[in-house]
Amino acid sequence: MASPPCSNGTTDDTLLGLPLVEPTPHAWVEAVLANVPRVLGDHAHCELKAASTALSLMGRYADDLELVLDLCALAREEMRHFERVHQVLVSRGLRLPPVGPDDYVKELRRRAQRGLVGQVSLDALLICGFVEARSCERFRLLARSLRDEPLRAFYEELALAEARHHELFFSHASRRAGADAARARTAEIAAIEGDIVRSRKPSPRIH
Amino acid sequence: MASPPCSNGTTDDTLLGLPLVEPTPHAWVEAVLANVPRVLGDHAHCELKAASTALSLMGRYADDLELVLDLCALAREEMRHFERVHQVLVSRGLRLPPVGPDDYVKELRRRAQRGLVGQVSLDALLICGFVEARSCERFRLLARSLRDEPLRAFYEELALAEARHHELFFSHASRRAGADAARARTAEIAAIEGDIVRSRKPSPRIH
Repeated sequence: MASPPCSNGTTDDTLLGLPLVEPTPHAWVEAVLANVPRVLGDHAHCELKAASTALSLMGRYADDLELVLDLCALAREEMRHFERVHQVLVSRGLRLPPVGPDDYVKELRRRAQRGLVGQVSLDALLICGFVEARSCERFRLLARSLRDEPLRAFYEELALAEARHHELFFSHASRRAGADAARARTAEIAAIEGDIVRSRKPSPRIH
Repeated sequence: MASPPCSNGTTDDTLLGLPLVEPTPHAWVEAVLANVPRVLGDHAHCELKAASTALSLMGRYADDLELVLDLCALAREEMRHFERVHQVLVSRGLRLPPVGPDDYVKELRRRAQRGLVGQVSLDALLICGFVEARSCERFRLLARSLRDEPLRAFYEELALAEARHHELFFSHASRRAGADAARARTAEIAAIEGDIVRSRKPSPRIH
């Protein structure tokens, strides 16, 4: 997929293959580089939340065998990632911080999750896909911005995982709701998500 | 630990080593044997919920390294158990049912979870320990009551896992709150839990 045009008129190859319309501003990279320990702690919590969300979707869409099996594998992978980020924290003499607020995901859900039957699972899956896509873009940014070589490699690897995860959610959304409906709704949510990213104050957190 | 005396004056060796004061009534075994598919489906959801609860405790007690690492391993083990129960369902041509209500755990939390600082984590950990202990007792009952040999072996194995899990929660409760406080509160919650089990109508569910 070609890199989509961005609202600021540029393209950014960290968006390649992702459905995002708004590149993360450079101010976010600066905020992160100024406080790497904080972003590591936040990242660890993101992995936990991703695993938790996958478990909750498994309970909700219990009758969808294919989705349940994929989500189970996904949740276990997120937990392995948590363990690895946690290990990075511990090896640097850091501790897992208290869990922080979740404004990006909350706002995305508030604005993009419709309550109508038939749209609920489509939106829920696409929203998860967007969170993974944004993580992918930001992990790519981390991989090229951090000065710490092992951490760069770590985020390069995790960016690939997040790309797979975003595809997983989008393919299930497409299978369940039909490709046309999924594509149309993806474009709508991309606009909402871009708007949220544009409006957020850069901080040393993943989202 | 000797089997504790039960309110109905008997002892039951499925309670051995567990802090439970009320044995599961035989009517529960009858309800389960009359509807094994339903209990398998419910069991699968119990494993998911246990993993989910562990993730949520990890987020809440992020500063407790020892607890976080144990809960992470626990959550992954619960997910492997989910996959195995799910496989049992699929191999019998069954599907994961919609998630059912959670009255036992909800009532246990409502009656045993105090809101006072310093008691919150003690109660939360002990409540999880009691849920594991009750699962352990019931898996032992399943292991000796089911007529299906592979399922008997499966529940024998899982009963051992639940026994380990209940010990994990109790040892962390004891480490955090002190052995005396944990022991005293365990006795109080045991009475509440026994009362809940006594009052529930037997049904083909784990709890």
